[in-house]
Amino acid sequence: MPTEIPADSVGLVSPRKHLFEEPLQLDCGAALPGYELVYETYGTLNAAADNAVLICHALSGDHHAAGYHKAEDAKAGWWDNCIGPGKPVDTNHFFVVCPNNLGGCAGSTGPLSINPATGRAYGPDFPIVTVRDWVESQARLADVLGIRSWAAILGGSLGGMQALQWSIDHPERVRHAAVIAAASKLSTQNIAFNEVARQAIRSDANFHGGRYYEHGVVPQHGLMLARMLGHITYLSDDVLHARFGRELRDGKLNFGYDVEFQIESYLRHQGTSFVGRFDANTYLLMTRSLDYFDPAARHGDNLTQAVKQAKAKFLVVSFSSDWRFSPARSREIVRALLDADRDVSYVEIESELGHDSFLLEIPRYHAVLRTYFERIRAEFRP
Amino acid sequence: MPTEIPADSVGLVSPRKHLFEEPLQLDCGAALPGYELVYETYGTLNAAADNAVLICHALSGDHHAAGYHKAEDAKAGWWDNCIGPGKPVDTNHFFVVCPNNLGGCAGSTGPLSINPATGRAYGPDFPIVTVRDWVESQARLADVLGIRSWAAILGGSLGGMQALQWSIDHPERVRHAAVIAAASKLSTQNIAFNEVARQAIRSDANFHGGRYYEHGVVPQHGLMLARMLGHITYLSDDVLHARFGRELRDGKLNFGYDVEFQIESYLRHQGTSFVGRFDANTYLLMTRSLDYFDPAARHGDNLTQAVKQAKAKFLVVSFSSDWRFSPARSREIVRALLDADRDVSYVEIESELGHDSFLLEIPRYHAVLRTYFERIRAEFRP
Repeated sequence: MPTEIPADSVGLVSPRKHLFEEPLQLDCGAALPGYELVYETYGTLNAAADNAVLICHALSGDHHAAGYHKAEDAKAGWWDNCIGPGKPVDTNHFFVVCPNNLGGCAGSTGPLSINPATGRAYGPDFPIVTVRDWVESQARLADVLGIRSWAAILGGSLGGMQALQWSIDHPERVRHAAVIAAASKLSTQNIAFNEVARQAIRSDANFHGGRYYEHGVVPQHGLMLARMLGHITYLSDDVLHARFGRELRDGKLNFGYDVEFQIESYLRHQGTSFVGRFDANTYLLMTRSLDYFDPAARHGDNLTQAVKQAKAKFLVVSFSSDWRFSPARSREIVRALLDADRDVSYVEIESELGHDSFLLEIPRYHAVLRTYFERIRAEFRP
Repeated sequence: MPTEIPADSVGLVSPRKHLFEEPLQLDCGAALPGYELVYETYGTLNAAADNAVLICHALSGDHHAAGYHKAEDAKAGWWDNCIGPGKPVDTNHFFVVCPNNLGGCAGSTGPLSINPATGRAYGPDFPIVTVRDWVESQARLADVLGIRSWAAILGGSLGGMQALQWSIDHPERVRHAAVIAAASKLSTQNIAFNEVARQAIRSDANFHGGRYYEHGVVPQHGLMLARMLGHITYLSDDVLHARFGRELRDGKLNFGYDVEFQIESYLRHQGTSFVGRFDANTYLLMTRSLDYFDPAARHGDNLTQAVKQAKAKFLVVSFSSDWRFSPARSREIVRALLDADRDVSYVEIESELGHDSFLLEIPRYHAVLRTYFERIRAEFRP
């Protein structure tokens, strides 16, 4: 292994794929005739198959959570600071599984895949999948991997919603659910931002009703706008101020619409680089899945009733400056869990970094995860 | 006058126009060879010409602040609840002037106007005008109207910024400045939202580099997105929740990208109706003018030094749930005014309605304005 790869990394990893040939009935009423999930694993499943941890990704994430695909990769997986030998989710002890969600654009079946019914890419015909659908698709992956019950399911943002849904839908299969920087349902403002992002994509002249693949184009402006807007909501006002302030790129005003302020340059860069790596139809689908998430809805709009189904123990974490999913939203989950007499630990981490905090190596946050996962390990150790 | 027009309205009004033939030197270095301002007046200028109030409009406002253009108009001017006989800005006593800003799209010279140098619409060639430029253009209007000094200059949001700039640039001509729901400069987050709005407009396939008039189209999708995004920031999370919650338009999910939630319907409606009444080039210009506003910049980044120029008395008002220009931003202005030993009254109004509050008839807010303007009246009464 080349010297560039740090010793506490899971090292070089290769994604795996599984084809599920049995149809999957979806929340929307449609059924997928079959589907593939691409996933990565780190660490080793023990003989009792009780040391498995499922990592659920957020809106723009994928299955590459840790390690490197090639020695020359500039960047490790998106949660590499958290997953690895000696890291909070310690791969010396846990067998970690991270799939790309159904409907994604990183290798699992989604809008980019060929629709067997038509022989061309699904595009806009790919059904909207929900958090419940993801849980079902992931449960089948667990079956394939021989995992009857997860030691823990861990996710931030939309990933935390999956952890919560798993605990409700498969109580016997989740021993711990770690719900980070999430909410039990989107606020009106959250939905509103998603709607602007979707309209940006769908009104792009290159969208072609979602069939842009067939036109050899992508709705790049719309996807770029969606990502720029997303970034504003991922970061706090304070951290934007601290990082960029009102700093001018050229040190003076140019009285035009090219970049004047450094923040504009940052947002444009984030937007354009996203266009190169993400599919617009998947972005639409993921935001709708976020909008729809509301596990209480099937329980008389009573979150306490919903989480009464769960048997897991819970870790709920929020970040003080996260205004997309504020601590108040996490406390709603905690209150419901307490009212349902579930075992829950709640930590609000002081952080200026906004919603993005859940991806960052914030010492107190990582200490909480480390301690929690050490406690889990104690449960399956002889 | 038809019975539909309420007794406390200024009634039927007609805009007036003035052509300024002398060139106007702008902050950006360019000069306008001449310009027109369209404006409305309500009430009567007294013999001493000391009862005049200037109303400065915000991003999407215009000169039609009060009354009706036609008896059959469904809506009165944008600040009709505040301006009229017996209203907080009482036209029985004050002579009220409201111009459309230079660069606007409601009749004053702007991107829609013919550029005398080319014989076609300015479009993107219209120079970016700043708050200082507006103040200069309005000062010339005051000269034309025979107003040496304003009893008060009043504005909300970008309008409040003009009131503040006036007090600094023309200390002898402003006796009171009422700065409502404003800030002494935009935050990084504010600039970031403006940048997304501008990119939405400029990346619209119908934008044509700002020359869309010549193509017989408008960048409607981009302008719609800008307005939708604006609306999210004008309203608080709480009021969005109270008004729309997660209510579904059809009472059930349809699993698609048409309107599912009422909030989506509201935003789309706000967006499309805006396209019919506002010009995209003006939107770009107004947001840049907001970005650039920073009166402290010419005084060593010291707001106290900047407002030391002023001789006016100040009323500063903020609204508790305004997260676009939060009370903290108003308090920065108040602190600078106090440090500069200026006379300032500050009120933070409890309101769930977000930034939009400054346009609404909130009893305590209007009581504050009424009392303040009664005090002003006492100064010019014999």
